[in-house]
Amino acid sequence: MTVASEFENSNQAYVKAFTKGDLALPPARKVAVIVCMDARIDPAASLGLQEGDAHVIRNAGGRASDALRSVIISQKLLGTREIVIVHHTDCGMLTFTDKDIRDIIKKEGEDSSNPANYAAAADTIAFLPFSNLKQSVIDDIEFLKSSPLVLDVPISGYIYDVKTGRIEKVN
Amino acid sequence: MTVASEFENSNQAYVKAFTKGDLALPPARKVAVIVCMDARIDPAASLGLQEGDAHVIRNAGGRASDALRSVIISQKLLGTREIVIVHHTDCGMLTFTDKDIRDIIKKEGEDSSNPANYAAAADTIAFLPFSNLKQSVIDDIEFLKSSPLVLDVPISGYIYDVKTGRIEKVN
Repeated sequence: MTVASEFENSNQAYVKAFTKGDLALPPARKVAVIVCMDARIDPAASLGLQEGDAHVIRNAGGRASDALRSVIISQKLLGTREIVIVHHTDCGMLTFTDKDIRDIIKKEGEDSSNPANYAAAADTIAFLPFSNLKQSVIDDIEFLKSSPLVLDVPISGYIYDVKTGRIEKVN
Repeated sequence: MTVASEFENSNQAYVKAFTKGDLALPPARKVAVIVCMDARIDPAASLGLQEGDAHVIRNAGGRASDALRSVIISQKLLGTREIVIVHHTDCGMLTFTDKDIRDIIKKEGEDSSNPANYAAAADTIAFLPFSNLKQSVIDDIEFLKSSPLVLDVPISGYIYDVKTGRIEKVN
């Protein structure tokens, strides 16, 4: 049984209790939240978001550069005027380097019909790991503030503690 | 008052009731979910996810190509072995073209000190809009299945109906 089919079963209960069918497309609280994809974080529950409130952008590390396309669409087309970045303790991004993950990919590719393909593909991706959690938040705020494509709006950065569920402001 | 400060207030209640402080870093259900950033979708509530269950990757449209870096990290370093893609009805990505959003950015840039900067930056980004919702899910499944950097795992695609909360399988 796939997890997808379990999702279908769980969704039936959600549909039965669903009352939010008339929400507007633009986020009601005019905020875009950039959060790590980490399984332990539930942005809605931990930040108090209801359906309709906020754009929630998530990727490995909650990196701003990887979220740029989405932030631009959020601001230019859907009117958000604040950004909140949430990274977290015990993040997987603290545990490897670009070289580490490229080596894993290249090793897997050795058994393929075209190892050079794997190597070339791996080398084109910046995996955006970091060695200092607090600095990663500061860097991401600075990245957005310095982009000509991002509006001059309030940007806050937080570290979420996976042991306590608490967010702590960085900047 | 910023929305960020409202998040801090809401987070206090979450912390008080928090009981999930000992979850492992790798997702317990070994699945990565790619969902649109749309404010109306709560992936955890609508799919039945608990903290610790799944990587949740979100971007404008829930596009797979934009999620590739995160999917690779999810699979190679954190052991997920299934992917679920969720796009949705009434998506903002159905309402514009790359030219539309680039024109908006260039127009804003006209008042800046360096309009050429804006134009060049806008032209470097593929905003990944789509004109056919079902096809966008099929395309994204195909993108992942054909990437040498993505493992051969089950990949399912769904359309979430923002009027009913229901997910419908595409493939």
